[in-house]
Amino acid sequence: MKNIGFSHVNINSGFWKIKQDMVKNVTVDAVYARFSDTHRFDALKCKPLTEEFTPHIFWDSDVAKWIEGAAYILQKEKNNALLKKVEAAVDDIISNADENGYFNSHFLVTEQEKRFKIRSQHELYCAGHLIEAAIAHRDATGNDRFLKAMCKYADYIEKVFKIEKSAAFITPGHPEIELALVKLYVATGEKRYFELAEYFIDEHGKYSEAVGETTAPKYNQDDMPLKDRTTIDGHSVRALYLYSAAADVAALRGDKELADACKRVFDNLVNKRMYITGASGSTHIGEAYTADYHLPNRTAYAETCASYALALFGKRMFKLDKNSKYADAVERVLYNGFLSGVSMDGKAFFYDNPLEMDPDFNNVYSAAKRSERFASTQRKEVFSCSCCPPNIIRLISSIGNYLYSYDDEVLYVHQYVNSVANENGISVEQITEYPKNGSVKIKFNTNGRKLALRIPGWCRKFDIDCEYVMENGYAVISKGCGTVNIDFDMPATVVRANRRVHDNAGRVAVMRGPVVYCAEGVDNGKDTRNIRIDKKGDFEIKDSEFLLPTIHTTAYQLPESDELYFAAEDTWAEMPLMLIPYYAFANRGESEMNVWLLEK
Amino acid sequence: MKNIGFSHVNINSGFWKIKQDMVKNVTVDAVYARFSDTHRFDALKCKPLTEEFTPHIFWDSDVAKWIEGAAYILQKEKNNALLKKVEAAVDDIISNADENGYFNSHFLVTEQEKRFKIRSQHELYCAGHLIEAAIAHRDATGNDRFLKAMCKYADYIEKVFKIEKSAAFITPGHPEIELALVKLYVATGEKRYFELAEYFIDEHGKYSEAVGETTAPKYNQDDMPLKDRTTIDGHSVRALYLYSAAADVAALRGDKELADACKRVFDNLVNKRMYITGASGSTHIGEAYTADYHLPNRTAYAETCASYALALFGKRMFKLDKNSKYADAVERVLYNGFLSGVSMDGKAFFYDNPLEMDPDFNNVYSAAKRSERFASTQRKEVFSCSCCPPNIIRLISSIGNYLYSYDDEVLYVHQYVNSVANENGISVEQITEYPKNGSVKIKFNTNGRKLALRIPGWCRKFDIDCEYVMENGYAVISKGCGTVNIDFDMPATVVRANRRVHDNAGRVAVMRGPVVYCAEGVDNGKDTRNIRIDKKGDFEIKDSEFLLPTIHTTAYQLPESDELYFAAEDTWAEMPLMLIPYYAFANRGESEMNVWLLEK
Repeated sequence: MKNIGFSHVNINSGFWKIKQDMVKNVTVDAVYARFSDTHRFDALKCKPLTEEFTPHIFWDSDVAKWIEGAAYILQKEKNNALLKKVEAAVDDIISNADENGYFNSHFLVTEQEKRFKIRSQHELYCAGHLIEAAIAHRDATGNDRFLKAMCKYADYIEKVFKIEKSAAFITPGHPEIELALVKLYVATGEKRYFELAEYFIDEHGKYSEAVGETTAPKYNQDDMPLKDRTTIDGHSVRALYLYSAAADVAALRGDKELADACKRVFDNLVNKRMYITGASGSTHIGEAYTADYHLPNRTAYAETCASYALALFGKRMFKLDKNSKYADAVERVLYNGFLSGVSMDGKAFFYDNPLEMDPDFNNVYSAAKRSERFASTQRKEVFSCSCCPPNIIRLISSIGNYLYSYDDEVLYVHQYVNSVANENGISVEQITEYPKNGSVKIKFNTNGRKLALRIPGWCRKFDIDCEYVMENGYAVISKGCGTVNIDFDMPATVVRANRRVHDNAGRVAVMRGPVVYCAEGVDNGKDTRNIRIDKKGDFEIKDSEFLLPTIHTTAYQLPESDELYFAAEDTWAEMPLMLIPYYAFANRGESEMNVWLLEK
Repeated sequence: MKNIGFSHVNINSGFWKIKQDMVKNVTVDAVYARFSDTHRFDALKCKPLTEEFTPHIFWDSDVAKWIEGAAYILQKEKNNALLKKVEAAVDDIISNADENGYFNSHFLVTEQEKRFKIRSQHELYCAGHLIEAAIAHRDATGNDRFLKAMCKYADYIEKVFKIEKSAAFITPGHPEIELALVKLYVATGEKRYFELAEYFIDEHGKYSEAVGETTAPKYNQDDMPLKDRTTIDGHSVRALYLYSAAADVAALRGDKELADACKRVFDNLVNKRMYITGASGSTHIGEAYTADYHLPNRTAYAETCASYALALFGKRMFKLDKNSKYADAVERVLYNGFLSGVSMDGKAFFYDNPLEMDPDFNNVYSAAKRSERFASTQRKEVFSCSCCPPNIIRLISSIGNYLYSYDDEVLYVHQYVNSVANENGISVEQITEYPKNGSVKIKFNTNGRKLALRIPGWCRKFDIDCEYVMENGYAVISKGCGTVNIDFDMPATVVRANRRVHDNAGRVAVMRGPVVYCAEGVDNGKDTRNIRIDKKGDFEIKDSEFLLPTIHTTAYQLPESDELYFAAEDTWAEMPLMLIPYYAFANRGESEMNVWLLEK
């Protein structure tokens, strides 16, 4: 099973074209500017420490992810100004790497004796991102100097961690190196890199009694071997990066036991621990998963990077299990919990993406200025740990990766995006405004394969103008070329959560197609938590400034009152309710916001 | 305006007789045993420190409150065993007091040089409770040796704080001394004690820039003079003890400005910051008030002592403002947020009294064992700071204090309790099972006054079998003696909260008379947060093991499901719902509990 890479997919109009243009024209430069302001690029020069700044342990990852995202943009379109910035950073990395291949702008300048001594210090995480960046750079420029330097670094990591075992730990505090090493194996054909990825994966669970850790073994997925795992636990981003690599390893070595663990973990996530937006990680405490069905909306952490990582994990899982649930999860998170991470203008970012905002009650604790921890009500241009912004660039600029897979028998269409793809004699053209509406025309030549069209999990009625059979959530068409028209019925749909999700008790959410909607105070007044909607009401769809339509219905609100408690009467008054796509919230100032509304 | 004291009121049967018997037969001994176990009585001996224990700064208050409660019991009924325990403690206090009158079992033994140097160290708080205990002891025994010792202590406090001003602070970290000094003035006729109370009250707001504080001025009601106050802020118990004293001072010196501030603060509390149970203090952070309408149920602090203190405050406010809202608040808190503080067997206590428990989700944070802070799911026999248990004893044993006030014109009946009262030629007999039902027969001779019967705020329909006029929530009858029959209609009532209370959005509570009900998981299964009730449904009242009836209705629950998110259909299934009085929750093991239920 092979994915068609984004370099073979051209997105020429529609929703994702607009988002790709935003990233190309605004985001990549905005992130570069903020990373420059904060000395992240200066740090690559590895100059002796001055008082100006101290390179932070994860700065290299921020920069590497920016290089990778920029390289994806450069693969598609020439841009000398951007290329110059990329090459300058790459030059600094190559020229300042240690003789043995090691590069880390923090540990090269400060704490030099502590290299690979402190598990929580993100060195292998940074290394993984540098490797991913180097592959993207080679693919964009055709020049392999950065890739060679990173191969040397990978060789050194192999020596220290696997051959000499001279590091103070083996499984890294923050996974990422594992999936990068699989990529490096694919990019270079060097089997040792895959074996090193396997090694890091397989060592999990051997160090549950590890000392000197700042965090518990469970937090690092180290309380048992990964193949025994049944639930997704610990730090959300770390977990999802790790399981993405585990899925790669399971697929490449045909490891059914590890594959089954990946399936169990994925199912636990999407069936019990995922927000309706596809975001996950219920608490800021450890940026972590908590318990089945514990999905608080207002204090949700739901980190943008965890949403990014679910897309990575879901894409890889299809290689282990040909089921539409994986692309369903990818679609859910792309249009909602991931995309909410970036402002409509492309310049600002959410780190955490809660499903409820109630700013009036965010700072209510008078004593000692302590408070519960709520998400920022507005996106920021940069963070001290600025992992999320470059993930926006990386994913949107390479979104073509998520559309198609194929084996000898079947070409799978996972996502509906207006685009043209060509690879290995396969050609597919999608003509669609999806998800503005559910009509998709596909002109295809599968080079002899069947064509499998994902019927989205959200879709309850659809029409395909040729014969098909349903297989694991895909409508499979036997013919290898021609045109097919699909029409996914896409009404506003009122959705309920499992009754164990106590935060959503009595509440429903409105979706249209894959898009989750929300009510903002700026449109609907105060006390949006108290707005009731009628699931049998009329929902009107209107074109809007938010790329996708707004949804309008008659809702119900209690009158304002001076009394605190009073006999409950039917005093609900009608009000017009305007819902906007969740991804577009918090673009018009601080406001109340609710995804989950009361059910009439 | 004078209250009839509990020594003139005999409660011979009914709800409060049962609770008084519980306190007399169980609670007073249970608390004594736990205070003995924990060396609180040993500490009064003020022996040189050993390794066995170190007297805690607030232990004297725990013991003093126990003595006071025991003395109230002894006023009503001879009990040599109990008297012996009281006298032993009193002897220890008297014999170990300093020559200058000072007594504090912590500062007499440890940190002797720090007396009255650290505002937060509860010395004046302990002193106030010792004074209250001494007055109760004199009233119970006729012997004034304890009272004399505490007058000497009060004289010393006057010298240090008011005359010499040699203490490191003036307004105490934890109020209590103020109301105790007013009581001491009333008990002894010594005007200086009242003037000292006035002094402590009037000094508030002069030290907003105070240094060396562990807490903010607002926390201590010290950010402005009390007369300027408009909202209730800071530590809930401290605030309510202080405003109780402020109301006393305002009444005794006819201070309209201070009285108006007390009214504003009271109104802010009951109209914007009070739980439906009468409890208050929304957060454990500083045990404090937060903001208008911020009344989270599950993380509510709602300390038992704050509920106790609201009864104190409400009783005093009537002297400033003849309105039934004060006795309404007292009734609300007595039957709900205060009484939930003690187990049905009288042995165990809640410190905080949340309106929702969801034990399955209390310990969900995997990382680093940190978690949000939820109340204990079960009552405990003693706490390291065990202020709440003796307040249960003090208030229940003296509940007769809350029934009647009179001036020259009118005898006011505030609370309906089966009892006989006699004072100054006034005699009142109440024959009632209230609040089991709403029928009250009153035989009265007011000694020439009118009779004013409070019409409870919860009551929407009532019948009185003689002529009356309504005045400020009281039905005023002109005749001075005879019999009156009142019938308060007491159906189960479905109550809603102000729409600004976002935690209660879409939710309603069931009350019957003054009693708030709740649904426990032990009766109603898992996911009680997801139970919907029909406010127009039938509510059946059944006698129960919980002193007052249970309420039964048909409710609605979603089926269990494996899906996390799904199209909302009308799948609500009927279920029998059993509600118990809120005060009786958590007496049958750990369980979910909800006061606020979904509204159909």
